[in-house]
Amino acid sequence: MAVDAIRARSLPPEFIEQETTQRDRSRGQVTARLNAWHARLAASNPAADLENGERSGARLIIPGDAEWPTQLDQLGQSRPLGLWLHGSADLRFSCLKSVALVGARSATAYGTHIAAEFGVGLGESGWTVVSGGAFGVDSAAHRGALAAGSPTVVVLACGVDVCYPSSHDTLFAKIRGQGVIVSECPPGVHPTRARFLIRNRLIAALSRGTVVVEAALRSGALNTATHALALNRHLGAVPGPVTSRMSDGCHRLLRERKAVCVTSPEEVVDLVGVMGDDLVSQSRTPAVARDKLNEVTKRVLDAVPTRKGAGPASIAVAAGVNLSTALSALGGLAAAGYIERSADGWRLRKQTTSYRKAPDSAALEPPLIDADADPLQDPPFPDEDDLVHREHNLPIPDEGSSGSPTT
Amino acid sequence: MAVDAIRARSLPPEFIEQETTQRDRSRGQVTARLNAWHARLAASNPAADLENGERSGARLIIPGDAEWPTQLDQLGQSRPLGLWLHGSADLRFSCLKSVALVGARSATAYGTHIAAEFGVGLGESGWTVVSGGAFGVDSAAHRGALAAGSPTVVVLACGVDVCYPSSHDTLFAKIRGQGVIVSECPPGVHPTRARFLIRNRLIAALSRGTVVVEAALRSGALNTATHALALNRHLGAVPGPVTSRMSDGCHRLLRERKAVCVTSPEEVVDLVGVMGDDLVSQSRTPAVARDKLNEVTKRVLDAVPTRKGAGPASIAVAAGVNLSTALSALGGLAAAGYIERSADGWRLRKQTTSYRKAPDSAALEPPLIDADADPLQDPPFPDEDDLVHREHNLPIPDEGSSGSPTT
Repeated sequence: MAVDAIRARSLPPEFIEQETTQRDRSRGQVTARLNAWHARLAASNPAADLENGERSGARLIIPGDAEWPTQLDQLGQSRPLGLWLHGSADLRFSCLKSVALVGARSATAYGTHIAAEFGVGLGESGWTVVSGGAFGVDSAAHRGALAAGSPTVVVLACGVDVCYPSSHDTLFAKIRGQGVIVSECPPGVHPTRARFLIRNRLIAALSRGTVVVEAALRSGALNTATHALALNRHLGAVPGPVTSRMSDGCHRLLRERKAVCVTSPEEVVDLVGVMGDDLVSQSRTPAVARDKLNEVTKRVLDAVPTRKGAGPASIAVAAGVNLSTALSALGGLAAAGYIERSADGWRLRKQTTSYRKAPDSAALEPPLIDADADPLQDPPFPDEDDLVHREHNLPIPDEGSSGSPTT
Repeated sequence: MAVDAIRARSLPPEFIEQETTQRDRSRGQVTARLNAWHARLAASNPAADLENGERSGARLIIPGDAEWPTQLDQLGQSRPLGLWLHGSADLRFSCLKSVALVGARSATAYGTHIAAEFGVGLGESGWTVVSGGAFGVDSAAHRGALAAGSPTVVVLACGVDVCYPSSHDTLFAKIRGQGVIVSECPPGVHPTRARFLIRNRLIAALSRGTVVVEAALRSGALNTATHALALNRHLGAVPGPVTSRMSDGCHRLLRERKAVCVTSPEEVVDLVGVMGDDLVSQSRTPAVARDKLNEVTKRVLDAVPTRKGAGPASIAVAAGVNLSTALSALGGLAAAGYIERSADGWRLRKQTTSYRKAPDSAALEPPLIDADADPLQDPPFPDEDDLVHREHNLPIPDEGSSGSPTT
């Protein structure tokens, strides 16, 4: 090429040879990786993955789906292409108010006590606990949330159908009934060290803030903390006795002023909470007021049973709408927190039973519907504007169209 | 007065009456206080105080004395008029590199353990521990310093001849032999709650930084921390289990970002140390190199005995100088850390025995003597310039004059 010719004339011979060799070496490396990826591609079987996944009760979500948590988009190029989920809670709604509790696998009695206490406290305050499902701090945090009757989110480094650690099978089963298990890996994939580290970015990205409960200097929890900072999430750390090596990691974060010192669930909520919103609301209310739902969505909501679940088809019939309209509305209602999945389909979340009975408030002016507006505007995550809780609007789906709410 | 007349014309009658009453009330209060002070003045007996003090072995220092720590001047209007001292260590020199360790009287085993450990570690690193001589954290810190063979400074809220708490008589006796006891109160005065709080400002002001080892939310140690911040001193806090109410005060300081998280003596030295100086020097070397001393001062230094002390008069004779010259030089040598007090007078501090034997370095150029320069320029305290360790110069005292080194 012309550039090469010019450079060849100006550089000393041995220098040109060096450059050429380096370029060839890089080319060689890229070629080798491409070959490796081609081999993996040839060995993959997406159709089988989907079939296996759905047979086990899992579902796959991708950007644009109603359940896709938009905060994950802040990962930019490292955003996952999709996520496998298994559990009754809606991932997007659960993560609207969520905190990651992370820490050592080899936690001390102090660490597990604090993790459980924080899990309970946060759950009772309407905050979802996100963690990795590992021994120690993770497991204690999940159990605390479950005890408080709150959803909890487990982000695994293996397929959602692979139970790791294996002794957590009962815990994960409980979580599926009350929360949701998440993975970037297809069904059947086993965890590796690299996958644990990669998974940590999702824990940090899904939640509004991360709290390191107990961690030694080399703990993987500090890796999650680094992701949180990179994503401009809140970061807290719990101090401990300075005589305990297991608290060294937390103390370093405090000393370097990277993390805020938190000593109770209340202080965690102070850290991650949205002003005005958390000072008042203690319970998990839907993200959109019922009065703001349009007529069609209200009809679909009214058709969702209270106790046992019902499938989308029967709900569509009961509501007098076609199937695709029903699917749209159901996705939006789940993301807004009105309904949840059960073994038999969709049912109301406990919070909303009273909502159904309340009359529409005739005094409220229905808001102007902006057809181009983002149908689901979640409260912004710290990376975006000021932490102001914005109003939500759901669009009026066209009865004849097959469009799903886009984000 | 003219102003009153003008105001009388413009304000409504009842308003003027109110004002007058308020002014009279203030006048009344001031008069009452003046009377109280007059009464106390009439009852005081400075001559008797001086006599009692010196009989017990104490000494009084005032601003301008060689031993007056100049960092106290940063207290401005609340600078003490003078300080009573009792002990063999030179206060000014001891406080050049000093850290206040403060905390709860009702400390836990954790708190006393950490205080003692920090006392030992700081003492071994050549840092003087300053504290209040109380139960709990104070006493553990003093004991740690003593165990490390380091000086320690106790600032009391009562006369230096009053032992409070009384069970600390042995501790204070040890401290007098290796450190110094300090008080703003004359001999015989007993402690009161007010005097404890007032005393705290001296603990903060004397030292380069304060570390709160363990403190509940209402601990007096937080009062000392506040003084430290007001004086622009470094402030550190030691975290503990969040389950311990006795660490709540420390955690609040960390959370509010008022204090730096410190977990070891090394981290404390990092906090308060002078760059370049503390990374290298671990031992307590004199503040002025022997080569920089002028001839007369060197002669006086050479006349100071190693083990048993000698009085100023015999030192003057041995050095071939008059008494006032000897007193000047002795004051400066003590402040620079070459000599210390003992029961019998002055003797060399252990560190300097080797100095005496070393030959003068002929290669070094003697520094220019600036007669107007500050004779003792201590490394500046954080309130002043950058923490740069400046060179020291001692003046050439006039053989015939009776001047003492001024600050």
